[in-house]
Amino acid sequence: MFAKRIERLKPSLVREILAAAQAPGVISFAGGLPAAETLYQPNLAQMQIPASIWQYGVSEGEATLRELVALRAQKLGLQCSADQVLILNGSQQGIDLVAKLWAEDGMSILCESPTYLAALQVFELFGAQFEASRDAMMAPQDVAHSAARFSYLIPTFQNPTGACYSTEQRVALAQAFDAKQMPVFEDDPYRDLAFDGAAPAPLVSHLKSVQWVYQGSFSKTLAPGLRLGYLIAHPDLIVSLTRLKQAADLHSNRLSQAIVAQVLQSGELDAHIETILPVYRAKRDHMHQLLTHYLADKATWEKPRGGLFFWLNLNQAQDTMALMRAGLEQGLAVMSGAPFCTTDHSGATLRLNFSHSNLTQIEAGVQRLAGLIK
Amino acid sequence: MFAKRIERLKPSLVREILAAAQAPGVISFAGGLPAAETLYQPNLAQMQIPASIWQYGVSEGEATLRELVALRAQKLGLQCSADQVLILNGSQQGIDLVAKLWAEDGMSILCESPTYLAALQVFELFGAQFEASRDAMMAPQDVAHSAARFSYLIPTFQNPTGACYSTEQRVALAQAFDAKQMPVFEDDPYRDLAFDGAAPAPLVSHLKSVQWVYQGSFSKTLAPGLRLGYLIAHPDLIVSLTRLKQAADLHSNRLSQAIVAQVLQSGELDAHIETILPVYRAKRDHMHQLLTHYLADKATWEKPRGGLFFWLNLNQAQDTMALMRAGLEQGLAVMSGAPFCTTDHSGATLRLNFSHSNLTQIEAGVQRLAGLIK
Repeated sequence: MFAKRIERLKPSLVREILAAAQAPGVISFAGGLPAAETLYQPNLAQMQIPASIWQYGVSEGEATLRELVALRAQKLGLQCSADQVLILNGSQQGIDLVAKLWAEDGMSILCESPTYLAALQVFELFGAQFEASRDAMMAPQDVAHSAARFSYLIPTFQNPTGACYSTEQRVALAQAFDAKQMPVFEDDPYRDLAFDGAAPAPLVSHLKSVQWVYQGSFSKTLAPGLRLGYLIAHPDLIVSLTRLKQAADLHSNRLSQAIVAQVLQSGELDAHIETILPVYRAKRDHMHQLLTHYLADKATWEKPRGGLFFWLNLNQAQDTMALMRAGLEQGLAVMSGAPFCTTDHSGATLRLNFSHSNLTQIEAGVQRLAGLIK
Repeated sequence: MFAKRIERLKPSLVREILAAAQAPGVISFAGGLPAAETLYQPNLAQMQIPASIWQYGVSEGEATLRELVALRAQKLGLQCSADQVLILNGSQQGIDLVAKLWAEDGMSILCESPTYLAALQVFELFGAQFEASRDAMMAPQDVAHSAARFSYLIPTFQNPTGACYSTEQRVALAQAFDAKQMPVFEDDPYRDLAFDGAAPAPLVSHLKSVQWVYQGSFSKTLAPGLRLGYLIAHPDLIVSLTRLKQAADLHSNRLSQAIVAQVLQSGELDAHIETILPVYRAKRDHMHQLLTHYLADKATWEKPRGGLFFWLNLNQAQDTMALMRAGLEQGLAVMSGAPFCTTDHSGATLRLNFSHSNLTQIEAGVQRLAGLIK
């Protein structure tokens, strides 16, 4: 007999689409994968790998890496110490740990709708229900009227909408969270992929009193295969989160931690980001241009200022799940917006990834897409 | 407001002891750490690391590694295919995933008492209660009389007792599990550390119909810092476990997977095990000799035929938690047996690790221990 939570562990449509998207010849706008040519590939022969890392490590993560992560967060305006940093096996793990900390049957989470699909899946697994913000971007009145235990949001180049909250929006929301005493979980994996100027300071940096967890990732800026992310938490939460990490897998991979610490220390991370930004910016501009050419009368969208996705609102009602299947038959993988939404009123929306395909594939893919949309 | 499960997330005594044990000058029999000189240190400069591993990977794990793990299990007598293998971020993660699959409020788990402390912690976090076997080794009548949803056990060089079930015991237990239709979770991280001949085939290899999960680790034979383990599951369970893995952290570290796949493929794993066995055997024999010399009138124990631990039953009632603290003041870290037990009737027991210290430290440590025991 399975635990009840397993009934909520739905077959993941995303997994199926991503699997299908990897078939040869398929153009994929479906996933959130970095382009192969932008991946950071460490020169392992020249790395300094201390012999000590082959032994068991501490659950919190390597001290040097925690210091470097804290330093980087401080530069963004987030006051924190290395003691508040927990190194993760990718930032997906942070969602699992925060769900264990706060989520259970009968409680609800205030989130943007649409929002990151795999976060919704984890929170549901732990019994949570959702309150959706009225608009795609969360507003102070959403917080004021909410009965949720905590709020999950992605204020910077949101997945899937690409939206980025202004400083004013962040300050106003932070005040609302403090006033309501509603803890905040800010997921921030796309911040460094900023194509038109740096993103505003993290929302949690404006909080005065309420508890918070902030998390980031090295998957988008270095390489997903390193499986390293981190969270930074309010001092009252870090002990419980560290114990949860210990229970989950003792500690994160020490080889990857040693590599990333060196990449951060040497300044290579920022240098690498400088090399990938023009590549992504060109792809974004190319997709925007092609969408304008082929889809201006069929959909509306905002040109994203960062991140990995376009979010399309189709002008005419259409079953986007059916469109997704029809696309696959024509060798094009896209994501329906429906699974990202916590309500049924998602409209006809699509999420298009522009980072993984090359310029030629982007052109061919948008052309095929135009043929699929009513 | 935390989730209710956080109330069950006790401050881990083990964490505190292990932290104290790392202070300079402390002789540690407390942890379960391999000796530094036995750790496998891959020559990264000479490894073939495919560029593809820096991209996102599949939740199941790398196909080559899954094949190699299945092959190794087949050689032990466990019939399985690569499709039944899930690569883990260390085998602690398997406990988290199986707990998510089967454990919830109001159910109970049949386990050995004493048993692996960090497994108890995870199961409790998910709301489980425990039924303990009547003796340290589980017997068919424990299964027959049990109302538990599933059974967790460590039949091979058990942690903490070092006990190893005979083939006859395994067959009889497997029949009892099949008769009761009680699923089995076999934790098997110590199998390859066999000092007096190979261990019998896994218990789950004798099951005929009931569902099962079997797991192993590369932490004891290669290096904990690689953070790689695996589970092999009954075909009906693997889809749910893979989805749980995806929700937990998307996939395991691909660099470590590439390294371990090469180490398995080249035969280096078995060669490495051959080099570490004499080291561990010598340490075990040394500790056994010293215990016989200094503690024969104060305690009883079985000389373990594998694994990492001696399990001492003290002749005289004594508060072993107080003994543990007194030991630390004298620069000796040992583990009280009490936290490993699911019942209060644990007697006065101690777990002593013999793998981490050198021969001189083992001698000095046993001498100090003799002074601490009534």
